[in-house]
Amino acid sequence: MDGSTPSTPASPVPDADRVHIFDTTLRDGEQSPGISLNVQEKVEIAQQLARLGVDVIEAGFPITSPGDFEAVEAISRGVEGPVICGLARTHKADIDAAWNAIKDAERPRIHTFISTSDIHIEHQLQTTREDVKGQAKAAVSLAKSLCEDVEFSPMDATRADVEFTAEVCAIAVAEGANVVNIPDTVGYTTPEEYVRYFQRLIELAPALENVRLSVHCHDDLGLAVANSYAGLLAGARQVECAVNGIGERAGNCSLEEIVMLLRTRRDEHGLDTACDTREIARTSRMVTRFTGYAVQPNKAIVGRNAFAHESGIHQDGVLKERITYEIMDARDVGLESNSIVLGKHSGRHALRDALEQLGFKVEGNALNQAFRRFKEVADKKKQVTALDLEAIVSDQVRSSSQSYNLAWFDVEASTRRDPHATVCLRVPSGSDVQGESGGDGPVDAIFCAIRAATGVDSELRQYTVSAVTEGEDALGEVTVMLRAHGRLASGQGVATDILEASARAYVRALSNALEGAAVREAEEVAADAASQPVTPGP
Amino acid sequence: MDGSTPSTPASPVPDADRVHIFDTTLRDGEQSPGISLNVQEKVEIAQQLARLGVDVIEAGFPITSPGDFEAVEAISRGVEGPVICGLARTHKADIDAAWNAIKDAERPRIHTFISTSDIHIEHQLQTTREDVKGQAKAAVSLAKSLCEDVEFSPMDATRADVEFTAEVCAIAVAEGANVVNIPDTVGYTTPEEYVRYFQRLIELAPALENVRLSVHCHDDLGLAVANSYAGLLAGARQVECAVNGIGERAGNCSLEEIVMLLRTRRDEHGLDTACDTREIARTSRMVTRFTGYAVQPNKAIVGRNAFAHESGIHQDGVLKERITYEIMDARDVGLESNSIVLGKHSGRHALRDALEQLGFKVEGNALNQAFRRFKEVADKKKQVTALDLEAIVSDQVRSSSQSYNLAWFDVEASTRRDPHATVCLRVPSGSDVQGESGGDGPVDAIFCAIRAATGVDSELRQYTVSAVTEGEDALGEVTVMLRAHGRLASGQGVATDILEASARAYVRALSNALEGAAVREAEEVAADAASQPVTPGP
Repeated sequence: MDGSTPSTPASPVPDADRVHIFDTTLRDGEQSPGISLNVQEKVEIAQQLARLGVDVIEAGFPITSPGDFEAVEAISRGVEGPVICGLARTHKADIDAAWNAIKDAERPRIHTFISTSDIHIEHQLQTTREDVKGQAKAAVSLAKSLCEDVEFSPMDATRADVEFTAEVCAIAVAEGANVVNIPDTVGYTTPEEYVRYFQRLIELAPALENVRLSVHCHDDLGLAVANSYAGLLAGARQVECAVNGIGERAGNCSLEEIVMLLRTRRDEHGLDTACDTREIARTSRMVTRFTGYAVQPNKAIVGRNAFAHESGIHQDGVLKERITYEIMDARDVGLESNSIVLGKHSGRHALRDALEQLGFKVEGNALNQAFRRFKEVADKKKQVTALDLEAIVSDQVRSSSQSYNLAWFDVEASTRRDPHATVCLRVPSGSDVQGESGGDGPVDAIFCAIRAATGVDSELRQYTVSAVTEGEDALGEVTVMLRAHGRLASGQGVATDILEASARAYVRALSNALEGAAVREAEEVAADAASQPVTPGP
Repeated sequence: MDGSTPSTPASPVPDADRVHIFDTTLRDGEQSPGISLNVQEKVEIAQQLARLGVDVIEAGFPITSPGDFEAVEAISRGVEGPVICGLARTHKADIDAAWNAIKDAERPRIHTFISTSDIHIEHQLQTTREDVKGQAKAAVSLAKSLCEDVEFSPMDATRADVEFTAEVCAIAVAEGANVVNIPDTVGYTTPEEYVRYFQRLIELAPALENVRLSVHCHDDLGLAVANSYAGLLAGARQVECAVNGIGERAGNCSLEEIVMLLRTRRDEHGLDTACDTREIARTSRMVTRFTGYAVQPNKAIVGRNAFAHESGIHQDGVLKERITYEIMDARDVGLESNSIVLGKHSGRHALRDALEQLGFKVEGNALNQAFRRFKEVADKKKQVTALDLEAIVSDQVRSSSQSYNLAWFDVEASTRRDPHATVCLRVPSGSDVQGESGGDGPVDAIFCAIRAATGVDSELRQYTVSAVTEGEDALGEVTVMLRAHGRLASGQGVATDILEASARAYVRALSNALEGAAVREAEEVAADAASQPVTPGP
């Protein structure tokens, strides 16, 4: 217990102590309200997860929509390194869809699940325990006939009868499941209880000792990381987690917390992952940006204040000896590594080199567009940092396939009279349309003018603004969530001008809603036997 | 394990199972970078904590500044119910200051601390173990001579030699400490390790069985709640925690999470607190608003998505049977209780009644001012909800004693030319001054115009915007953190117009910086033997 900092990457651990990181940011995380990632964004995140060194990427739930299917397929074809996993209920249509989406992956995995708790069997599935056993058997058997790597989850296990759950798990193992995951679906268990559950489960179904056991914990009572850790101490060797802890309700176990807990306290338990922790900060920023879900300042590992010296406040004790108050080194999670600074005189080559250092390969027309945006920003900011570049390029990725585009706007605002905005947009037909409006404030006036210009009925649900970097001339990043074309959609915009960022975000959210609606129409046309899943998954 | 929801308030537990909630939002929480609560705000928060039913309020660290002293004194005199506690190092001056600040409280407590870890003894205190023992003895003895209720904390205990820590704790108990707190100051321990530490400590210092043991855990590895819970299972009966989990670095154990964990899983452990959990949501909102520290959407208990039906998305399973996916009822944490809706025709009486229902007693001139703000907002919003009223009144509380006040502004913005702002302010001398400026965007132009008008050199450090309620005509709440008059200060502004909210927030932050600077000058004049604490405390 010397409080020293772990090195990165870790020295290898024996196989028996190697914890696999199963990232579900793109599946459980993406199910959070208002997150609407397009295929390109999902591929970007999956590539970053591969750089981070996760073992498994749960890329989606292919049966749920053609868009989800397409994203899982694109990740399977384009992302190298991790196992690529698709989620499926026990239905044949789900398993076929999952397999078709992942079959081109280097190392595909089908993850199938069914609830074993009586609450779920009665109210959700409206069936019997016998039927659940039969469904689990058939599903794992089918999945195994298609794919060598099969994971099975008894959903809501921690609220289920352990004897019955053990029976179902034994069936899954007998049919060939090589990973069995014990989800705390509703975030109800405690560390002690979870350990007892694992112990009893293994006692009842000794075959579980021959497969990889997994934990999947939700944070409803603030225990997702602790429960996951307890499950590992009880013998599990896979953690299902999500970047920034996003996911259903209070979210999943936070990837960065469990990874840094294992790395930092390896002295205590001997376990470790294969993650390159220096990629953590960038992964967190990317997920924040694409999802519009911010992390709070006091969030462990990736919050603005997680490392005291990041906040600009140097406590005397920290200066005297860093380990007096810090148990981790900010550099080990990828903070403070941003030495890149460009200015208004930097050229295209310098930009391309800087982007490459950041892990973005940008060429041709995309580079031209990124360079144009960079110049616009560099004209207004003295220094363009690595964080700014990330924001600009991410913004570029998102805008490539928009239906609506902002041409220009003018706005007047005052405390002494009502605001007024005029907006010009390029619409899907290719023509430019203008709209004008007053409003409660200049942002509202701009949004009303956009509605007037497009004629699309949309309702603002949420509006957030954050600064990309600190200081006077920071880039502002606006996230808008709205309801239009019958669905919730979000969009982001980046600019030094908050009104411009707001307008861009609104236009992008509208585009996303329109594209989502188009996908849904396609779904309805192609409607087959598979009904929409009525369950959010483990 | 039936997944049922706890009732609120809980049925009483036996004394032996009663967990005391020690809230340190105003001490450890307030030490977060950029939080600058004034006395009135601290009193408001303390009153809300009393309504929530916490057992102890750590109101501040009185030696650190006259402002902190004044706030602790005001809370001691004005807040009824909880024990009011002041923090002190082992120095005589600290303990005297703490006692002078709390002595008018119904039930005062002095909390004194010194590190027992060799890392801290060597690098922070630069002394010896023998000296630490002597200081602890003298401090507890002095505190006990002044105050019946004395708490002692061996800081950084979890990284300290347990034998030495036990020796120091035994001394503290012998001198009369009736609460002994075992802090995990740097957020380093794990639940198993913490339990072993408590067990060994009690074995080595059996006198600890006769006092109330306490936990104080930081969240650097995401384990603050789990470690606190483990400490309770090992025999502690006080939890030190903060609303929204704010505090040094990744913050403290989150009050709402530990309280709801104990309430929800009382079946598992038999422990409970005396909190009225229905006050949790309002307390969280108040702390968010006054500190400017937002909670993330997926934060347990108080995040926007913590309860699925809050997000507007009703999963099929939730509709079928709420407990299928929810282990708590949103009403039990005070969500969905906001039936109050006022409109533009509501009168002064309706406003006063609504505010009283919300726990605000507003009369006379304050009511007139609140009514004027209410009318301004009601003119722009169709419905003014309880959440809006909270924001308006909080905004009023904060603006009562400002040095600078916004009179009006005009701004023009466009994507086709540079923005331009003109601002008029009332300055401390009572006269109106105007300034005008361009900028990177309209917000920047307004801030530059404010700087031009006041002539005060200020640097923007952080800028955040959030919406008070959802929908089209939501109130926007802006938080600005800036550096001026030699210190960091933050300010908030509320308006339906984001530019107006920004201008108000900037002006308020400037006022706070000026007041803080005035306080510091007073401190320098009154400088006595007590040096500024070089430690952030447990």
